[in-house]
Formats: sequence, C-alpha cells, structure tokens
Amino acid sequence: MSTITIKAYGATASTEDLKPLNIERRQVGQDDVKIDITYCGVCHSDIHTVRNDWKGSKYPVVPGHEIIGRVVEVGNGVSNFKVGDLVGVGCMVDSCHTCSACQQDLEQFCENGATFTYNSPNKHIPGTQTYGGYSTSVVVDKQFVLRVPENLDEAATAPLLCAGITTWSPLSHWKVKKGDKVGVIGLGGLGHMGVKFANALGAHVVMITTSPEKGEDAKKLGAHDVLISKNQEGMKKHQGSFDFLLNTIPVGHDMDPYLALLKIDATMVLVGAVEPLKPFHGGSIIMGRKRIAGSLIGGIKETQEMLDFCGKHNITSDIELINMQDINSAYERVTSNDVKYRFVIDMQSLKN
Amino acid sequence: MSTITIKAYGATASTEDLKPLNIERRQVGQDDVKIDITYCGVCHSDIHTVRNDWKGSKYPVVPGHEIIGRVVEVGNGVSNFKVGDLVGVGCMVDSCHTCSACQQDLEQFCENGATFTYNSPNKHIPGTQTYGGYSTSVVVDKQFVLRVPENLDEAATAPLLCAGITTWSPLSHWKVKKGDKVGVIGLGGLGHMGVKFANALGAHVVMITTSPEKGEDAKKLGAHDVLISKNQEGMKKHQGSFDFLLNTIPVGHDMDPYLALLKIDATMVLVGAVEPLKPFHGGSIIMGRKRIAGSLIGGIKETQEMLDFCGKHNITSDIELINMQDINSAYERVTSNDVKYRFVIDMQSLKN
Repeated sequence: MSTITIKAYGATASTEDLKPLNIERRQVGQDDVKIDITYCGVCHSDIHTVRNDWKGSKYPVVPGHEIIGRVVEVGNGVSNFKVGDLVGVGCMVDSCHTCSACQQDLEQFCENGATFTYNSPNKHIPGTQTYGGYSTSVVVDKQFVLRVPENLDEAATAPLLCAGITTWSPLSHWKVKKGDKVGVIGLGGLGHMGVKFANALGAHVVMITTSPEKGEDAKKLGAHDVLISKNQEGMKKHQGSFDFLLNTIPVGHDMDPYLALLKIDATMVLVGAVEPLKPFHGGSIIMGRKRIAGSLIGGIKETQEMLDFCGKHNITSDIELINMQDINSAYERVTSNDVKYRFVIDMQSLKN
Repeated sequence: MSTITIKAYGATASTEDLKPLNIERRQVGQDDVKIDITYCGVCHSDIHTVRNDWKGSKYPVVPGHEIIGRVVEVGNGVSNFKVGDLVGVGCMVDSCHTCSACQQDLEQFCENGATFTYNSPNKHIPGTQTYGGYSTSVVVDKQFVLRVPENLDEAATAPLLCAGITTWSPLSHWKVKKGDKVGVIGLGGLGHMGVKFANALGAHVVMITTSPEKGEDAKKLGAHDVLISKNQEGMKKHQGSFDFLLNTIPVGHDMDPYLALLKIDATMVLVGAVEPLKPFHGGSIIMGRKRIAGSLIGGIKETQEMLDFCGKHNITSDIELINMQDINSAYERVTSNDVKYRFVIDMQSLKN
C-alpha cells in the first residue's frame, strides 16, 4: 500500500523526550476522511503511553487523541463530510462495527478491540501502530470523524474529544438533570469539564476538592458551592445529600468519605482512577443501597451529541496554547498538576 | 408502663455464652400485635451482636430477627391481623414512617433510625433495648408484622425474614428476569436463598464457589451450572458473560476476578461483606461501565412481596432444627461454616 510521509512529534523509547519524526499515513481510501490537523490537546494518557506506564507501548509513540482540524480530502464513499468542514477525532479511529457493543454505539468496549487513535495495531499499514494527533494530518474512517460546531473556539474545542466525552458520558448515561445535586470530585482537565457540563445540565454543582483555591477556581467555571474534603464538619453536613458524584481523581484513593455523601440509591462514577483503589468498606454501599460505577470515554454517537450540546451552550475547555516544540516541558507541568486545565498544541508550529 | 415478664435466651456480656433470662415485653397497645413465637432463625448477625463485633452492643443481648409465630392478641386499632394468623417479624419492628426513606418503603434506611428487632433503643420501655426472637413472645407494631402463607413449612419459613429478603431485594430491585445469566457467589445462608430465588425468577443460575462440593450442593438447590472461582480457565471462559452477580461473601475479598465476569453495564451487588473489601482496580469497572452496588435486607412492603412469592413458588430455606438449649454449640457451627444452611430454633423447647 502506498503511503505519504508527514511530520510528527513522538518518542522513540519510554525514557526519551518527544522529538520531531517522520511518519507514514495511508492514502485516502473509499470511506476515509483526510484531516489537516490544526490543534491537538494534551491528555495525561499521552504521557502514560509515552512513558510506558500501562505497559504495551510500541515505539515510536506518536500521542494525541484530542484532534481538531479541517477536512482536506474525502473518499468516494464519503457523503457526510466535505472539504473545509471543521471536524474532530477522539480516542478511537475504528472498531469491528458488528459486535454487540458496537451495535449499542459503545465502540469503546468493542469486543474485538477498538482501534485507538495511537498505539493500536494499524490495520492499514501492517506491522505498524496507529499514530495520533501530534502530527500535521490524519486519515480516518468516516464513521469515527466528528462534526465540530463552527461557533466554538477551535483550539479550546480539542479537549472535548477526550476530557469532554469522558465527563459528559456518565452525566448523560446516569441522567443527571435540572435540580440534581451533583458533586464533581477533583479539579483538573476532567473535573473542570464536569463542572461546566453539570452546570449546563441545570444541576446544583458542588466542587469537592482538598484545595480552597481550586474551590474558588471551580466557582468561576460554574460550581455553585465548594466542599473541602478535608473539612470533616463540612463533609458531615453534606452527608447523604448528593444525587450523583463524578469522581475524577486520577489515582487510587479512599472512597468511603465520598460514598457517605451519596443519597439512597445514588451513584458515584469513577472516570480517572485506572489503578487499584484503596479498600472501601462494604457498609459504605450496603447502607443506602449505593452504587460505584465506572465509565470510559464514550461512543461515537454520544461524542457527537456532546459536541452538539457544546455548540448549543457554547462550552469549550479552558486551555493554555503551546507550540509543538514545548511539549516536553508541558508534560512536566501536567505531571506536576500545573495547568489550567488543558494544554493544546497549535499545530501550525509543527508545519512551519 | 406495665409490662409482662417472659422467658428468653440471651448474653449478659460479649464473652459469655447465651443462657436463660427473663425479659420484659410491653402490654399490647392500640396498634400492636402480640405473637406467640414458634420458630426463630439463627443469623450470623446474631453472633456478631452477641460478641460485640460491630461495637455498640447493649447487654443483655437477646438476638433473633427471623421470627415466625401465631397472633395471640391484637390492639383495638388492628384490623389486618387476627388471633391465630401465621405471621413473621424480620429485622425491624419500627421506623419513623415520615422521612423520605420510609415514604419510599425503605424503612431499613429510615433517616431517623429504624428500630431494629434487637439491640435498638426501646421506645416503649425507656432505658432498655429491644429484645429479639430468642424468646417466647413479642409485641410488634402492626406495620412491621408480615403475613406468612399457610402452605409453607413453618420452621423453614423463619430464615426468609432475613436471609430471604436480603437476597430477594437485590434480585428484585435490579430486575433479574427470565433468561438472565445470574451468578450467586458463595453458598451459605444467603447464597442458598439467592440460588432458589434466581432459579424461580427464571434466570440461568451459576453457582460461583471455591468448593466443588458446594457446587454440587448448589445444583440440588436449583443452580444450572457451577463455576469454581479458583479455576482460572473457567473464570476466563465466563468472562464478560453475566447479567448480574449476587455476591454473598461475608468477609473482605478481592472483587476483581468477579467484576471481570460481568457484561457491559452489568451489576454486582454486595450483601454480605459489611467490612473493608480488598482494593479493586478502577479499570475493572471503568472498562465495560460496570457497577458495584450494595443492598441491605429490604423494606416491609418488599418483604411481604417476597413472602407472597415464596408462597406461590413453595420456597423456603433448607434448615436444621435445634432446641433453644443448643444455641451455643450452634453458634460454634455457624462460625465454622458447618450448617446447611440455617439453624432454626424450635421455640417449644424454651416454653417447656
């Protein structure tokens, strides 16, 4: 199969900084959309993959799954996108389309294994892995391309493709509605989107954080109230009062204090901690018939619904725009939790 | 308030064996039902309370919350029970009736604190605690008395009042239905009822146990298949295939292997482990959007529904009948998991 060579940024080993690379992209096929990448968000998963924290990383790793760009070419079989359209690509670029998960629009749980945007086996160029959005262009199956509302700020839209859908999906799936008391635990890339979405859905949003400063920041993003999780009196006052908790803490932690905040039959959803949690007490959920659930990004249909909702409510991420060449120092800052709330790479910097 | 003195069996300290005691019961009030106790089941919670494992035990402790008997007297305000009726009393004898939990028929979560059948403050005889069914009679508010179908074996019905409702409630709440693949984890007092109920609801029931012998026993109770949890190959074969898991393990344990058995969006309910669980991996529920929930006995309305279902399907517990005087050796056998599947006390032995 003939390919084209493009510019990218990636890591050639887990211990190496990211650096300029050339990578191969497939030619545009029948059902493909070629996208000129204008912006790409920086997700903590990018760093985990570069550093091989989750094992299984294949090098070079070219990260990036919060991709925004313009359509520059489409295959003969593509009628829903045309050259010039503003589009996005998230964490997946393909799946089997036939398993029961795919048929329920839950491609992220494809039983035959979704093709993730980076570090998945590349079906089109055998022997290689997929390369993500830290690059000048990408070729993607039309079914995995999202339509981005033109009224939104282009750069600030990028993080919606991962941080956005990750927080939108549980709020939508668990039917958070006007008047619900919703707690968002943790204020980072995920949490700040959770606050914006829960507010736009009409919920009474409480930021739950260890840090009073983050509490104040959350109020600017749409939180109505702040609960400092280290304040035992405050935690007791709010006990049994939450309809829903969106837990974005990215590391293992003690869940018991948060479970105590839930009403009878209410749910806490984990979206961040892909690692062992600390032991929780069975009584924390047996008393009150409570629930702990998980959630992973969202399907393509749901991602489109989220983008449409963002267009209608003018919701984007709060970002810090960087050049491609700044990526290594940006990684250091993400790791030390020093970004409000997402870095986005201006891909013009790679093209120059 | 005038009281009557009756015979009972109880413990006067956490380190003492149970022995004969005299206790006071209130006279029958306007809305009360007096029950001559014929049988009382032996629940592991009885032992925990006698031994003060959960702290807060007040002595003497007179346990017993799986009570069966005949109505011998009713107050003027009681029209739904009459002398001679076969009735039951479970884990609760009163609640506030006004909070939102009570109004949802979830008296077990009464926001003002349900009055449990034993070891709760006794509103009627201030300064004392409630005494349970290891006694010759009990006086209970009419709203907490259950009607027992006359076609059921009287002694074998007793454990339905706790072990029965504890396993029925989650199967009912989570809408287990014909054709669902349901796993019951652990075969004891709770698990054996879970198998019977899930079978009667038309589910394909899989007994999940460490012990092949228990697996064979479960088949006699209605399990269609057995999965030995130590058999990694078997566990892998059943991965992602269960619609529902009823987890009756009474102690902290590693939940990850069981969570792997659930389908997308499926739920594992904990009913036994009122203690710290081992750390589970966030990925176990984030992948597949799975759920861990808790469940505690059930409300009075639901308990009546369960008893009616049992009457219709002729479901009772498998029991070993003992005399009141055998209670201390029975406790030893419960603790060493040596009973199929519930001891029930023949209360005639206390009356003689």
